[in-house]
Amino acid sequence: MKTLITGGTVVNATGTATADVLIDGDTIAAVLAPGSSLLGFDLAANVDEVVDAAGKYVIPGGIDAHTHMEMPFGGTFASDTFETGTRAAAHGGTTSIIDFVVQYAGENILDQYHLWHEKAAGNCAVDYGFHQILSDVQDSSLVAMDELINEGVTSFKLFMAYKGVFLSDDGQIVKAMQRASENGSLIMMHAENGSVIDLLVQQHLARGETTPFYHGVSRPWQAEEEATHRAIMLANLTGAPLYIVHVSAKQAVEQIAAARDNGQNVFAETCPQYLYLSLEDQLGATSAEWGDFEGAKWVCSTPLRSKHEGHQHHMWQGLRTNDLQVISTDHCPFCMKGQKDMGIGNFSKIPNGIGSVEHRMDLIYQGVVMGEISLPRWVELTSTTPARMFGIYGKKGVIQPGADGDVVIYDPNGHTSIGIGEGRTHHMNMDYSAWEGFEIDGHVDTVFSRGRKIVDSNEYLGRKGDGAYFKRGLSQYLI
Amino acid sequence: MKTLITGGTVVNATGTATADVLIDGDTIAAVLAPGSSLLGFDLAANVDEVVDAAGKYVIPGGIDAHTHMEMPFGGTFASDTFETGTRAAAHGGTTSIIDFVVQYAGENILDQYHLWHEKAAGNCAVDYGFHQILSDVQDSSLVAMDELINEGVTSFKLFMAYKGVFLSDDGQIVKAMQRASENGSLIMMHAENGSVIDLLVQQHLARGETTPFYHGVSRPWQAEEEATHRAIMLANLTGAPLYIVHVSAKQAVEQIAAARDNGQNVFAETCPQYLYLSLEDQLGATSAEWGDFEGAKWVCSTPLRSKHEGHQHHMWQGLRTNDLQVISTDHCPFCMKGQKDMGIGNFSKIPNGIGSVEHRMDLIYQGVVMGEISLPRWVELTSTTPARMFGIYGKKGVIQPGADGDVVIYDPNGHTSIGIGEGRTHHMNMDYSAWEGFEIDGHVDTVFSRGRKIVDSNEYLGRKGDGAYFKRGLSQYLI
Amino acid sequence: MKTLITGGTVVNATGTATADVLIDGDTIAAVLAPGSSLLGFDLAANVDEVVDAAGKYVIPGGIDAHTHMEMPFGGTFASDTFETGTRAAAHGGTTSIIDFVVQYAGENILDQYHLWHEKAAGNCAVDYGFHQILSDVQDSSLVAMDELINEGVTSFKLFMAYKGVFLSDDGQIVKAMQRASENGSLIMMHAENGSVIDLLVQQHLARGETTPFYHGVSRPWQAEEEATHRAIMLANLTGAPLYIVHVSAKQAVEQIAAARDNGQNVFAETCPQYLYLSLEDQLGATSAEWGDFEGAKWVCSTPLRSKHEGHQHHMWQGLRTNDLQVISTDHCPFCMKGQKDMGIGNFSKIPNGIGSVEHRMDLIYQGVVMGEISLPRWVELTSTTPARMFGIYGKKGVIQPGADGDVVIYDPNGHTSIGIGEGRTHHMNMDYSAWEGFEIDGHVDTVFSRGRKIVDSNEYLGRKGDGAYFKRGLSQYLI
Amino acid sequence: MKTLITGGTVVNATGTATADVLIDGDTIAAVLAPGSSLLGFDLAANVDEVVDAAGKYVIPGGIDAHTHMEMPFGGTFASDTFETGTRAAAHGGTTSIIDFVVQYAGENILDQYHLWHEKAAGNCAVDYGFHQILSDVQDSSLVAMDELINEGVTSFKLFMAYKGVFLSDDGQIVKAMQRASENGSLIMMHAENGSVIDLLVQQHLARGETTPFYHGVSRPWQAEEEATHRAIMLANLTGAPLYIVHVSAKQAVEQIAAARDNGQNVFAETCPQYLYLSLEDQLGATSAEWGDFEGAKWVCSTPLRSKHEGHQHHMWQGLRTNDLQVISTDHCPFCMKGQKDMGIGNFSKIPNGIGSVEHRMDLIYQGVVMGEISLPRWVELTSTTPARMFGIYGKKGVIQPGADGDVVIYDPNGHTSIGIGEGRTHHMNMDYSAWEGFEIDGHVDTVFSRGRKIVDSNEYLGRKGDGAYFKRGLSQYLI
Repeated sequence: MKTLITGGTVVNATGTATADVLIDGDTIAAVLAPGSSLLGFDLAANVDEVVDAAGKYVIPGGIDAHTHMEMPFGGTFASDTFETGTRAAAHGGTTSIIDFVVQYAGENILDQYHLWHEKAAGNCAVDYGFHQILSDVQDSSLVAMDELINEGVTSFKLFMAYKGVFLSDDGQIVKAMQRASENGSLIMMHAENGSVIDLLVQQHLARGETTPFYHGVSRPWQAEEEATHRAIMLANLTGAPLYIVHVSAKQAVEQIAAARDNGQNVFAETCPQYLYLSLEDQLGATSAEWGDFEGAKWVCSTPLRSKHEGHQHHMWQGLRTNDLQVISTDHCPFCMKGQKDMGIGNFSKIPNGIGSVEHRMDLIYQGVVMGEISLPRWVELTSTTPARMFGIYGKKGVIQPGADGDVVIYDPNGHTSIGIGEGRTHHMNMDYSAWEGFEIDGHVDTVFSRGRKIVDSNEYLGRKGDGAYFKRGLSQYLI
Repeated sequence: MKTLITGGTVVNATGTATADVLIDGDTIAAVLAPGSSLLGFDLAANVDEVVDAAGKYVIPGGIDAHTHMEMPFGGTFASDTFETGTRAAAHGGTTSIIDFVVQYAGENILDQYHLWHEKAAGNCAVDYGFHQILSDVQDSSLVAMDELINEGVTSFKLFMAYKGVFLSDDGQIVKAMQRASENGSLIMMHAENGSVIDLLVQQHLARGETTPFYHGVSRPWQAEEEATHRAIMLANLTGAPLYIVHVSAKQAVEQIAAARDNGQNVFAETCPQYLYLSLEDQLGATSAEWGDFEGAKWVCSTPLRSKHEGHQHHMWQGLRTNDLQVISTDHCPFCMKGQKDMGIGNFSKIPNGIGSVEHRMDLIYQGVVMGEISLPRWVELTSTTPARMFGIYGKKGVIQPGADGDVVIYDPNGHTSIGIGEGRTHHMNMDYSAWEGFEIDGHVDTVFSRGRKIVDSNEYLGRKGDGAYFKRGLSQYLI
Repeated sequence: MKTLITGGTVVNATGTATADVLIDGDTIAAVLAPGSSLLGFDLAANVDEVVDAAGKYVIPGGIDAHTHMEMPFGGTFASDTFETGTRAAAHGGTTSIIDFVVQYAGENILDQYHLWHEKAAGNCAVDYGFHQILSDVQDSSLVAMDELINEGVTSFKLFMAYKGVFLSDDGQIVKAMQRASENGSLIMMHAENGSVIDLLVQQHLARGETTPFYHGVSRPWQAEEEATHRAIMLANLTGAPLYIVHVSAKQAVEQIAAARDNGQNVFAETCPQYLYLSLEDQLGATSAEWGDFEGAKWVCSTPLRSKHEGHQHHMWQGLRTNDLQVISTDHCPFCMKGQKDMGIGNFSKIPNGIGSVEHRMDLIYQGVVMGEISLPRWVELTSTTPARMFGIYGKKGVIQPGADGDVVIYDPNGHTSIGIGEGRTHHMNMDYSAWEGFEIDGHVDTVFSRGRKIVDSNEYLGRKGDGAYFKRGLSQYLI
Repeated sequence: MKTLITGGTVVNATGTATADVLIDGDTIAAVLAPGSSLLGFDLAANVDEVVDAAGKYVIPGGIDAHTHMEMPFGGTFASDTFETGTRAAAHGGTTSIIDFVVQYAGENILDQYHLWHEKAAGNCAVDYGFHQILSDVQDSSLVAMDELINEGVTSFKLFMAYKGVFLSDDGQIVKAMQRASENGSLIMMHAENGSVIDLLVQQHLARGETTPFYHGVSRPWQAEEEATHRAIMLANLTGAPLYIVHVSAKQAVEQIAAARDNGQNVFAETCPQYLYLSLEDQLGATSAEWGDFEGAKWVCSTPLRSKHEGHQHHMWQGLRTNDLQVISTDHCPFCMKGQKDMGIGNFSKIPNGIGSVEHRMDLIYQGVVMGEISLPRWVELTSTTPARMFGIYGKKGVIQPGADGDVVIYDPNGHTSIGIGEGRTHHMNMDYSAWEGFEIDGHVDTVFSRGRKIVDSNEYLGRKGDGAYFKRGLSQYLI
């Protein structure tokens, strides 16, 4: 299959170009001055399809570096399978996901790794890679790290919260970081002080404060700031590069900025929910169906933060100043019925997570419309830097010869209405949308994954299994 | 002229690609998967020349955003004309310079602008643009700013030093910044506290401390840090974007970093001399010919700084952390005989300046060899960001279709010996080299300027007047 | 005259003691355990007067280190003479003032110094010392510094604003600082960027923005922050100790705090107006008599700042953290009629200043009531540290044997209503009060100056000329 | 017993006074102008003893707020009993200690408290109070806190290290802080990340790195900085005041300074060893008797730090800037024979501690001689602030009427040679001195404890049991 995309504005991380893009088979064959010909050779006549992108943006497919498809949690599973979740991703212009292989404390890491391959293989609409979660780090975990690097898993997520489930203590974290410092892999960190949070949860529940709102209250910014600083200091001690996931507190950003100013390899992502949603939204949420349990729709960790404290403004600023380098979703969807509702009467039983894998490209494009970030920065935050950060740049994250034909045509004159209501675009396997009612001044028109057109005009054209596993190299973003 | 560069490693700001580059006439026509053919069409057979770049880097031509060709100073002129200086630049892989139109206090700005065009027109080996120096800002200066933007001069340099010559007081600076805030142009700042420096110079001379070493001593880091902070605060007041030239003090970098963390549009360059040379080098310098006046070779402003204070380390770190975004040369050459020697017996009479326009790409590549920066960062600092900063990205600073055919083939297995001694490569019009004896583990092999091969294997193939003036747009780097 | 003050709570900078205080002649003879006797010796029977201070605070007399009595300004004079101003001070529990000898540019410093002695001698109700203003620093100014130190004038105020009147440029400031660094004196700084302010004033007036409100708008926090940082850096360069007067911007406090953390001898005062009054108060001010010129009552420099920016909170915090060490008044009163009204139609013609010398002890005591500062901190900020800072500790600023009998009995159960309305306590020579309507939960009951009871129950018992000049030593507060 | 100390220079926290001090029974009856008489009454004739202090300093007795007498550790006990330790303290001018009641995990807090009373009662040479160590905080610990406050124990020490022995996890710390925030007590913190240290110790031992030097290496500054920040953030969350013990890393001081600048009630002490001794001293230590185990003499936690990193300079600076408020000793002596030597072949078995209770006043006075701190600051750091910090000011820490007669006459013309060699002054029960060979340009001449002369001219005149327990109130130092 040969496709020529003509007349669009190719957007990359440093700027734009008016150019044609030729995809030949799986990969991009050339980027060319517009006009459909080269040295007199008529390209248009020699391809299978010519796609007119005039007036539209041609961007590298989105890379969502933080998803949890089918994640087992509290006896249930995140409601999107690799099939439904990656198809929703495709609809939203995301052509790569990096999902987390879950190892709960006590489980065998490589067994889990293979299990995740089984879940994903043959089911995905877009390409995928894996990070590995390491819970309760043991010496065997260190051995597994080296083995997994050979498998293309080059980043390892640790937790400073969820004792007995995910948590590694600081000595365990140092051990993993020492190994990362040797083998070049990247340590990802869920940076919240679990010990403090567990106490506060217990105290709230003991006082009868059981509604979803108290989820956020029991996870104060101090717990995030503290853990972020601690992770940075342990990384400083060991020389390991560090990537903080789902940053939501401005004070955490300040810690990250300070470490970066100091030349330390510290990186961080934030997620759309921390840019648009607030604790007060959650507090005020109510519905005929769910009453004050409505707020459960936005129970995620780190939590939504108070709009009176300036966090949203600070997140956008951090994205502009490059103190935050990546936007992921932390996509971890649960339905209200049968899943979230396990936490009625006890917010700590609500499965944590929000589903956004479908909407990230749109939601962040809206930041361009709002003037929060520039057009190239949109591509950099959602595709180019995730690719560099996680060792797939060159194949992904850029429109250049030799790269995979993961290309999205985005229409700045289009419109997208998010949600599950009538006329809305939701494809995720959820019975609600955390983004219900959001309106986007742009639209994902056409999506190519390794040269195959898988979405066009809201129609899914691909097949289950189109997506392939990609091995990742070491981070290409270290200084 | 059609040229196909094959098999090289194309380096851009975010990474590399193995790709062929096709230049057709002035511009890049395509970047293609390697192999010299496309959809069966034999490219090699349809071009005038095929250049084999296997094993070499193919990079966008260097952009030196800070030069002073033929600058009038104290009754003499910087020793490189536009002809000699741009030819030296070409030899060193720099295909664009942005030179400063000098307006001394009292001179008519637009007259000076036209005079600079006269000097440059028909003489340059590579393309050139202009910044405008505004001395002693008047209301008429503000009018000139608007007019010059239409001429493609979109950045204006002010001075906080050199009273009666260049200096504008803080109120004058604010006026220019207010205008910049309105018209979108960029304020460039020579940030040293001239009032303090003038006093210290006078005090040193009064004590009989007249050798070149005292040049640096009389311009302490506090004078730079202070002025840097002041410029930032005035920019904060007015909302103007600000670019600090030739940063040499780590404390100045800290001020810049703080402003940037805070979301302010503050940018800065450093120069090779602040990465490699120190005040102590200057102090210890002596020669049979010049005795302790030898140190005059490195008299520049801002001055070389003490190696005991950690400035060099901090400059490299700032380049890594993006607190410094650009490397320019502040190329302002003067010969020792007949020029620098005016300052024998009085360091304040030494014409200020170092000549480096030829060596910037090599010297910074050596930073890659030393592990100080990455390969893409080399290109970003010396070409891509200068292009974005000064409004020429798209035409310059990137290898992509539609861009000017300014391409350098750089050989990482080559070698360059800098200086005027035997077997050395100096082409600048200077009777000494500030870089005598520096050895570089790389070499500029071939240089294309708008599609014309102007340097190959150390041979200059171009002609006077190849280089054309480029109008610049507003900065593409603002957040 | 021998006086025994019995049963009070003696408050000093580190805490309190229940103790009797014996004043014998001019000085404190002893501080004793309460009971009016010592080793069986009946003290009460051997003194002229016993004053019962039970339930009251016995504190060292207040020291107002920043006053401008009879200051010549724009053809008029500050409305309090040394006689009226020091009498008002006495009423308010302030027993020492340090007034500024004014030298305008071009005037002879020592002539001015002697002139100030003439103004004050024989007129003062309380003791007084002098700082010297140095305008437009010349070499002769440096000579005068040394001479004045012998006269007990050990602190010299420079201005970064008021060009042609007070301003010294940065080189001049460095010269004075170099001298201070040698002779041990203290540089006081009016830290506002006059060049910027002059421009903004001119621009506002040109736009017809002439009401008092624009006084504050034309002196933005950036102008204060910038000058504060600049003064700190010049002090860093020279090694001189530095004292910033009338700090009002939180950003200036941050600069001061950073310098102090770094071990630099940088100190600062704030004034009651920056703790209680805001730019919005001034904006909203209107009256039948003055219309929107009412705001002129609060025209002072540095100006009142916006309450929406958190300055007041930050000033109190700085007082708690010791980033601000002293509270003075910058007492510089002008009447509305015949003085302030010179600025109707042009805010820049309004004489700058607020009168507070009478109310400082009360206003800051109210901070104790409000919980902003502790009781010992009240004494430290208003008496002990001013004494140490300006070289009179031991004689002033502490209740200990050998100290001058400057003692105030303050009643925490009393009440003070400030202003010129009926039943209010104003004694300053002003036709309005900047503090009209302020209510204080405490009262100055009795005031001793060098052993003489000069105020009791709101009645002035002293005589013109009671107050004597005190020579000051070098600062006792340097680290 | 009535004593009149005449003609000395009384030093307090804000300055000095030439004054006589009259002690009547236990307490100071008066501070008087020098001359031995008052209102004609001949004091000298009416006291039991007149002590001539001319040319000497008269200071409030030293308060060592951090000692561990007879502390049980690893099957042995700190080698000073309350008898020997407090006698040594007396010799060194320290008239109050605050010792730590040790509760190991699992022990009953109040039982331990009573046990400590048993140990101390009737044995002490000087007055004493207690802090309570809380290990492994439980709900019962919170109850004990309230009870102990009534007993005059108002400060509670928690540990972030020593798992299974002392450590409380972060949730436990928060619980204790929540209670402190309610009951007004002070949380003291051993701020080192024990989890990280335990790992590093294990790794060093596994590599055969067993000598005392590795004690310090296994406790890097990052472990201290991290825990300090964490403690500050937990205190921020709960509103509890926080006091960090034995700070040795400059990075920890920076964290403390930042919190204080921000208005948080965070305090800290350092100890003489961190001002004078370094890791390199320990590394190089060797002796005929102990070989490379000699370094065990300086095994303490936090450890000595590298002199190449600037910690000592930063500690002195922190003492000047009041970012450090108190100097204590962390006196915890162990003999080399039979105690420290348990760690031959395994540094982790060396009992941690240095003995300094006798030398603190001298060692810090030497800082005055060296110009590091001022004379009043010496008294403030060693007596006045410890008294205020721990709720005994008024009775202790100041020379004023009503205060306990704890007075030291210090001779700035005397000399003290520290150590156990010939002619040296050591009175602690240790077979070595960590301070061997230190020479002090001053001398403790005479020591009064509650009016009794207990040391004079190096002779101990007191008796076992002179010292009494003092109940403490809440901290008087909070802002």
